[in-house]
Amino acid sequence: MSKGIPSRSEDYSQWYNELVKKADLAENSAVRGCMTIKPYGYAIWEKIQAELDRMFKETGHSNAYFPLFIPKSYLSKEAEHVDGFAKECAVVTHYRLKNDESGKNLIVDPEAKLEDELIVRPTSETVIWNSYKNWIQSYRDLPLKLNQWANVVRWEMRTRLFLRTTEFLWQEGHTAHATREEAIEETELMLDVYEKFAQDFMAMPVIKGIKTANERFAGALETYCIEALMQDGKALQAGTSHFLGQNFAKAFDVQFSDKNNKLEYVWGTSWGVSTRLMGGLIMTHSDDQGLVLPPKLAPNQVVVVPIFKSEDQLNAIRVKMQPFIQALRNKGISVLLDDRDTHKPGWKFAEYELKGVPVRVAVGPRDLENETVEVARRDEKTKEVVGMELMVEHIDQLLEDIQINLFNRAKAHREANTHEANSMDELNRILDDKGGFVSAHWDGTTETELKIKESTKATIRCIPLGNPQEAGVCIYSGKPSIQRVLFARAY
Amino acid sequence: MSKGIPSRSEDYSQWYNELVKKADLAENSAVRGCMTIKPYGYAIWEKIQAELDRMFKETGHSNAYFPLFIPKSYLSKEAEHVDGFAKECAVVTHYRLKNDESGKNLIVDPEAKLEDELIVRPTSETVIWNSYKNWIQSYRDLPLKLNQWANVVRWEMRTRLFLRTTEFLWQEGHTAHATREEAIEETELMLDVYEKFAQDFMAMPVIKGIKTANERFAGALETYCIEALMQDGKALQAGTSHFLGQNFAKAFDVQFSDKNNKLEYVWGTSWGVSTRLMGGLIMTHSDDQGLVLPPKLAPNQVVVVPIFKSEDQLNAIRVKMQPFIQALRNKGISVLLDDRDTHKPGWKFAEYELKGVPVRVAVGPRDLENETVEVARRDEKTKEVVGMELMVEHIDQLLEDIQINLFNRAKAHREANTHEANSMDELNRILDDKGGFVSAHWDGTTETELKIKESTKATIRCIPLGNPQEAGVCIYSGKPSIQRVLFARAY
Repeated sequence: MSKGIPSRSEDYSQWYNELVKKADLAENSAVRGCMTIKPYGYAIWEKIQAELDRMFKETGHSNAYFPLFIPKSYLSKEAEHVDGFAKECAVVTHYRLKNDESGKNLIVDPEAKLEDELIVRPTSETVIWNSYKNWIQSYRDLPLKLNQWANVVRWEMRTRLFLRTTEFLWQEGHTAHATREEAIEETELMLDVYEKFAQDFMAMPVIKGIKTANERFAGALETYCIEALMQDGKALQAGTSHFLGQNFAKAFDVQFSDKNNKLEYVWGTSWGVSTRLMGGLIMTHSDDQGLVLPPKLAPNQVVVVPIFKSEDQLNAIRVKMQPFIQALRNKGISVLLDDRDTHKPGWKFAEYELKGVPVRVAVGPRDLENETVEVARRDEKTKEVVGMELMVEHIDQLLEDIQINLFNRAKAHREANTHEANSMDELNRILDDKGGFVSAHWDGTTETELKIKESTKATIRCIPLGNPQEAGVCIYSGKPSIQRVLFARAY
Repeated sequence: MSKGIPSRSEDYSQWYNELVKKADLAENSAVRGCMTIKPYGYAIWEKIQAELDRMFKETGHSNAYFPLFIPKSYLSKEAEHVDGFAKECAVVTHYRLKNDESGKNLIVDPEAKLEDELIVRPTSETVIWNSYKNWIQSYRDLPLKLNQWANVVRWEMRTRLFLRTTEFLWQEGHTAHATREEAIEETELMLDVYEKFAQDFMAMPVIKGIKTANERFAGALETYCIEALMQDGKALQAGTSHFLGQNFAKAFDVQFSDKNNKLEYVWGTSWGVSTRLMGGLIMTHSDDQGLVLPPKLAPNQVVVVPIFKSEDQLNAIRVKMQPFIQALRNKGISVLLDDRDTHKPGWKFAEYELKGVPVRVAVGPRDLENETVEVARRDEKTKEVVGMELMVEHIDQLLEDIQINLFNRAKAHREANTHEANSMDELNRILDDKGGFVSAHWDGTTETELKIKESTKATIRCIPLGNPQEAGVCIYSGKPSIQRVLFARAY
């Protein structure tokens, strides 16, 4: 490909890596596993943040900010939590550097050693529940529904831009409730918020489900998730919502007096999505020519490229287009007019294709005569000539069409790549042939789940919510099964 | 005082600490020097962020995100920078914890030691200029105008909520330019943005000036600042904008080919404001009854408190007020209706006074009969009865009046507390009597500056921009001086 990106069929993984870099979304930094999110990538993340933040506030949550550092001792308080997170965390042991004896090199000052080492938060349940202990005394203090936008660090051995990085950006919601029922309701509500966001804004269809015990968040009683299917047939966990039961309340001694003045432990939830969503967005829609962005998350929804040979021609185009551009902006549509004379129209066409701008408008001198523009849509790579007086309405409608088309396309892809398997052979064959989700009977044990993972590299992505109950036999053990679950190889 | 907060005249420092906690803005966390920003405090910070972010974008900046961790070696590349920041940084030396032999305690895994230790960013010049090296080749890549919203860590020995904390939130702008002039213009432009924000939104008057060489940012050629005066007569540095010259470009080898194809080093700036602004906001306006917030940054601009004895009365008030509340909201005014029956009106009045809600509306049964409401303003603690039909216009105007009144009040306070001193005695006397800014002649040397600091605990806050040139003698050394500079004891 001309842009130096392999095609998806050649090498999907390399296509992804190169696209992320060439489209100016992100790059690897000099620090192992940490990425730099470039302005264009960050502009998309800002749109993701803004919409999610609005949805969190509409469902009664407030933002707060808790410390980056967690005392090592906190991590041990919840027995399962420590196993999940102690193995991959960044540890701060000193608080000063100094020059060595030569005066030329900077070394860690051995005298500035911390008595209790600090962990850079991999997630904030411990530090937040430690605060909740002081904030919650009575049923009147409940529910407490907070969210935080933050960076977190998990020391990953193999990293990929957006999908798995040592430091990543995310939001983490942490709520406290008086009853088990209310906490479960919250867990499910936030899963619905994630589903709605994924589908309506990212145009990415997702399956809501429950994780198996083995895949559960360390410290949760139940982990709900949304799972998406990428173009290459691999699944992506796009968001999780955890019902924590009273685990963290017990670990941090968070009790409240109920209406009858009886002390009870608080019920908790936590839920999060991260910059990983950027990876999902890219791998759901983009093509061999570059990024394809859903209009609702595109930093520029429309780009106008004037075709001109002289400054006079350019000026005539500018003057003519100005009211139309303004009319689009008045409708809340973001429009970029690229009138640089340092780059040729062909270069600009390729650039905005690569960057995934949903609608491109080209206008040349003949268009001025005819009172027309050429409107191209990025998703289907089709173009048409439109009368200027219809242009604003046309583009407004087109953006809606593109948003819906992207969702429908991705949903059709997922449906075409979801199969049933009734034996291990069949599971293996489907995974090797085309990938995708595979619905199969499983006996419900972690042992079987791990054996299947070992032999197929596929994991149980989830037990879909509202899953039909259906008697069958486990494809691995032959033992009785009450339902099919969704397997896939995953990111 | 009933709220458990000492008065300002009793103990200003304690008044501040208690107010921050009692008004639910922030609290100390279990990690030394790190604060937890509570939802009410964070809601104010979100308003600060939103306005600044808008102003940055309007002046042509984009957001991006660079890694939290900086390789130790980067810090040494700029000679002055390392001296400024190596002494107070958090150092990550390991990437894993494990159980000790007893299996009961979590310890740092000695086998997971990093070869090159990582610093938690105290500021990001080094990591950003290391990226700029790859991003900038030609004059066409300039200017590059980025900003990042991030957490940073400086290992402070003495910390105070918002004013000086080990971890704090901030924005840091980092720009790269082709010429010295353009970089200086940018440095000054961002100082103007900070001034405008401080004055128009925080209602906090500031003096724009230049820091002395001694107070300059480590690695800058010139540090510009905005300085505010708190109620207790101490100054607060509220924002800084640095002209970096070519220092970081040279340290990280960032060169560009100009229009004549000649290689030149890039010119840089950086500028930032932090959660410290929250401290400035509190200490500029608040009083012995609690927080006083300027309407433009108040999470709730108006609170409506119904006075009722029965559910029927409450319902009648709700029905009657609903269209007025809606009309206020339609004007973009945030209104909280506190119709809880768990708390008495007196309790609510005290609560919203403590929280600094600019306008309080009280409505009781008699008001319904008379078609009136009682409107109280937080800043002047006055109230008046207003006809309901005039209420919306009245409150809209009142919010503007409060915003202006707060600024004027603070400005009058600063003017009343700015004095000239023509001798060390006079300087000392003013500082001890009433504090404030003291304008005095200084010989321009770091030596004298440090001597004055040692004997008075006052520092040179800045050399004001447009400072009148005036021949005189230095109050300390008696040597000739060309201008007065501003001294103050400071936070």
